[in-house]
Formats: sequence, C-alpha cells, structure tokens
Amino acid sequence: MVDLPISFLDVAAAFDRLANHVHRTRVATSQRLDRLSGYRVVLKCENEQRTGSFKIRGALNRLLQLGEPALERGVVAASSGNHAQGVALAAAITGTRATIFMPADAPASKVAATRAYGAQVEFYDRVTTIPASLVEEFAARTGATAVPAFDDPAVMAGQGTLALELLADAGPLDAVVAPLGGGGLLSGIATTVNALSPGTRLFGVEPADGDDWVRSLAAGHPVLIDPPATIADGARTRQPGTLTFRVVSQMADGVVTVTDDEIREAVRFLALGMKMVVEPTGALAVAAILAGRLPLPPGSRVAAVVTGGNVDPDMFAAILTSAPGGGSQGR
Amino acid sequence: MVDLPISFLDVAAAFDRLANHVHRTRVATSQRLDRLSGYRVVLKCENEQRTGSFKIRGALNRLLQLGEPALERGVVAASSGNHAQGVALAAAITGTRATIFMPADAPASKVAATRAYGAQVEFYDRVTTIPASLVEEFAARTGATAVPAFDDPAVMAGQGTLALELLADAGPLDAVVAPLGGGGLLSGIATTVNALSPGTRLFGVEPADGDDWVRSLAAGHPVLIDPPATIADGARTRQPGTLTFRVVSQMADGVVTVTDDEIREAVRFLALGMKMVVEPTGALAVAAILAGRLPLPPGSRVAAVVTGGNVDPDMFAAILTSAPGGGSQGR
Repeated sequence: MVDLPISFLDVAAAFDRLANHVHRTRVATSQRLDRLSGYRVVLKCENEQRTGSFKIRGALNRLLQLGEPALERGVVAASSGNHAQGVALAAAITGTRATIFMPADAPASKVAATRAYGAQVEFYDRVTTIPASLVEEFAARTGATAVPAFDDPAVMAGQGTLALELLADAGPLDAVVAPLGGGGLLSGIATTVNALSPGTRLFGVEPADGDDWVRSLAAGHPVLIDPPATIADGARTRQPGTLTFRVVSQMADGVVTVTDDEIREAVRFLALGMKMVVEPTGALAVAAILAGRLPLPPGSRVAAVVTGGNVDPDMFAAILTSAPGGGSQGR
Repeated sequence: MVDLPISFLDVAAAFDRLANHVHRTRVATSQRLDRLSGYRVVLKCENEQRTGSFKIRGALNRLLQLGEPALERGVVAASSGNHAQGVALAAAITGTRATIFMPADAPASKVAATRAYGAQVEFYDRVTTIPASLVEEFAARTGATAVPAFDDPAVMAGQGTLALELLADAGPLDAVVAPLGGGGLLSGIATTVNALSPGTRLFGVEPADGDDWVRSLAAGHPVLIDPPATIADGARTRQPGTLTFRVVSQMADGVVTVTDDEIREAVRFLALGMKMVVEPTGALAVAAILAGRLPLPPGSRVAAVVTGGNVDPDMFAAILTSAPGGGSQGR
C-alpha cells in the first residue's frame, strides 16, 4: 500500500468547487451497442463538456484554489490539445491571464479555440524544444502558476468529479473503462469509484502504439517509450506521471490496448449509430468494448468515458468515409 | 377558424401510448450559440431519438392504435428517409410486418437500416412511379394498413409528443422553431404549444429551393412546386398535406427559408461546436437562427428542434471539410 496523492475527499471538494461552472454531462445508452458488445453499456459524454472535453474539470479545480496574488500573476501551461482549452477557459472563469505554449504546427482550429477563450498563445518548435522547460522558465520569470496536464493532485481530483456524476446517474456498475494518456483522469475516477463502489472494476485503454502504461505496469515503475504514432493524439504521452502511476498501479484492474483501426471503427460507430462527434482519443474506451478487449463476462454493466469531441474536421471526414460498413441506423 | 384534425388531447394520449418505447431526448444549450444568435437557445435533440429521428413517434402512435386483425395484415409505407426506419421499428415493436417502398437509388445505408429493423424493402423507379399509388395498390391487395409520412392525425399527434417534453424540460419559451417538410411535426408541435403555452410563437423553416409552404400560405391553399434540389432531403416535399396545412396555416406565426449554404454552416456548427451529428434537414431550425432569419427580438428564449441525424457519411464529410472557418471549440 503506497501513499496516495489524492483522496475521495479531494474529489468531493472539487465537485463542490466546480458546481455551476461545468456541465453535468449526460449518460447515453444504445441498444445496438449492447447487442454488439454483449454488455449493458453506459457512455459518459464528456465530448459535450464545456471546451469539448473533460480537461476543464481538472484545470478549473486547480485555478479555483489559487489565491488573489497568484491569480494576479497568471497561469501557464503547455498543450497542443484539450488541456490548452481547459486552462484557457478556467483562466477566463477565474479572471486570470493564461499563457499557453503550443507547438508551431498545432492545428489552426485548436489555436483559434484557445485564443477565443482569451488565452495568450506562444509557439515553440516541437523538434528543438522541451515544452516543460518552457513552462518552468516562464513560471520562474513571471511568477505565473504552472498547470500540469495530469501529474498534479488538484488536476487529478478535478477529473475525478465526472465519476461522481456517473455513479449517481448510471446506477450499479460492474466496471468503468476510461482512456489512458497521462493518467490524470483514471486516477481521479479510481479514487472516486474505489471509495463509493469498491466492487466496480477499473480499466484503462491506451493505443497499441502508445502502450507506456502496459509496459510501466509490467516493469513496476514509469517507463519512457518512443514517441507514439497513433491517431489518438491525446494518448501520445510517452511516460506515466509519477503521481498518477502510484494511483493507477494500485487501484486499476488492468490496462488494455486497441489498434488505430479499432479506434476509427469506434469513432464511426459513435457518429453514425449514436450521432456523437468524438475525437479518436475520446473513443478509446468504446473501441476496447467493441473489440472485445475487456476481461468481463457477458451481461456486465460497463460505463465507458467518452472524453472529448475536438476532432479535426478533415481527420473526422477521412475516418467517416473510410468506413468498411457504415450505415446510418440509429439506436 | 377551421375545423382542426387533432387536438391537444390526441397528443397527450399519444404521449401516454409512446412512454417506454421512445427516448425522452435531452435539451442542449450552448453559450456559443447564444452569443452568435443573440437569443437564449435550447435544442431538442431528436437526432438522438431511436432510429435517429423523431419519425418513430408518429409511426408508432399510428401502429399502437391498430387492432389485432390489422396487425396481422401488416403495414405499408413509402419513404426513402427517416419515416422508413420509423415505420420499420414501430412494426417490430408492435409485432407486425412492415413493407417499405423505397426508390431504387436510395442510399444503401438507409436500406440496410430499414432492413435491420426487420422490414421488407421493395424498390421502385423514382422516374416512372408514384410511390403513393404503390402503397395504395399494395394496401388494397393485401389488406395492409398504409402509414402516411405526415398527413394523418395519429402521425401528427405522435410527432407532437416531443413538444410536451420540450415544454416540461426547457421552461418558458418565446418561440419554437422546427423544420417543415410535409408539416406533420409542426402540426403536432403547434397543437401542443398552442394549448399549453399560447404566448409562445411558432415558426417553420424550409429550404429556399423547397418553399412549398411559403407559397402555399401566400396562396391560402396547398400549392404544388417543382421537385426541389436542396441538400435537405427530408424537406423535398412538393406540397403541404391537406390536414397539416389546416393546422399550420391557422397556428403558425410564420415560415422562413434558408439557403443550402446556411444549412451546411449549421451542420458544421452543430458538429464542431456542439459535437452533434445532424443531417441537413435536421439542422434547418438552427440554420434559421444562425442566419438571423427569425423576426424575434434579441434575448428571446427560442427552442429549435433538431429533427434527425441520419446523414450519409460521404455527404457529412463533404460538409465538414468545406468549412469556411471551422474551429473545434466547444461551448
């Protein structure tokens, strides 16, 4: 039993703090998904969350705990993805300035969305620069508070708030399945579910080409992998966090992987069958369910977290039109 | 004051009948949509309804009123769109056989979806054949009950049930805006809203190239127009129904039109901004709001019905990638 960085009370406090700022996203069901999987599945639709992903929860929970002097000095983060928008909106809500370092080749739509929330975007060269050092240098120079994407207790606790909603809205669950990037989300979920529903099993899902968690859990410590080339850009992390590894290694029941083709199939299913726009990373858990990758008996009640919907339009179009089957049938 | 084909009690009875068979679809809001439109907008998400559109409501309300002898003889309908799937699922629920006449060039995905619910699909040549006569002939020969797509009191009352949910879930509304094809949906909505919230104004939206309602209301009777060439395939009706014209002409406050480009812009907004998969016809009401086509003062509380999500994947991809602006920002 290792010492854990967050407790259920941290998640409960975050839930209280975030009320009226984030959406209580719906849970969705689909008779077709149940038929295809053999499970009774509920989806937690964080693609419909503010900013289009769950990341606002953790970022805002961090910022809402800053004092007035810190808020006056601003916040800083590095992200080419959903964390950028989460920090940007959290800064707007708390009335502070956000500086976001993004790679120079970040999609224009993500840059525009981050700026639309009022953040200052600074570009860096992905090849020559390590963004963490940029954030550190900026924070040291300006006094701004760094907001990590996952390896931070306040961020982990904030992400866990979606599990409180899920347990209340979905009823008894045999398992919860969530995408696994840096591990902040699964850490928050595990802390919550372990406290409230200890019989519920917990699984993380990562892309086959970005299996840093599978390897790290086998090794017993965080392992650094080569830069992954998966379509699931939100799960291209190369190494679990120090804090998140402690939580996930102790509380999760397993981590499974899915191929990029299985991710595409899940994105198509969600779009054509359930009318949901979901980005590849956001479809990881559904991909694992559809691919039969989970060690759960038929009939299990399984919740899958759909984490985000900020998909590049061109990529989304390519996934939809590469359909082997397709079909526009509803549920 | 003309004699009306349905009353609020018909809608209430339909609501009672449909309970446990159809989804109570959510209402969604978006700060960005409010900012763009100047209104406070709620969307009724019937793209998430069973079969992917509201059409199941009317079809099922019709079939649930058939006696055992009629159910044994089966039902028949003609549709290349959402009504086909609505009748097919309604038949499966009530344990009867459905025969659906579809044009030979109907999208394979729609044919597959209709068959997946157990319906028998018969093809006809769109150029040489009038589908209504096929249905009539089939009904006369086999004793099957014809299920009209809109000009039928039970169908109109069934569609109106979504307005009961909307009024209960959305609070006081200044206006309700809905797509207008044959007029079954707007007839059901108008009957409901007129009874429960008579101060709420009602608007229909049709494609500029399929403006049979605008012309018919101006003429004071249903007018037949040339086959429309709009992307909104669910609103390519050439003439209002006899019954629906009576209701809409008496109860609606106006009908506005939108261009195909405005429809595409609405589909893009719903996909990228709100993570919703919506077919062009289903986006008509949102298109009218975004295009500023409604005669309503800023700050009005406006409900828009999003009617369906059964979009062809290739067409959806083309709409998404033709974006003038795009952006993946959430709400």
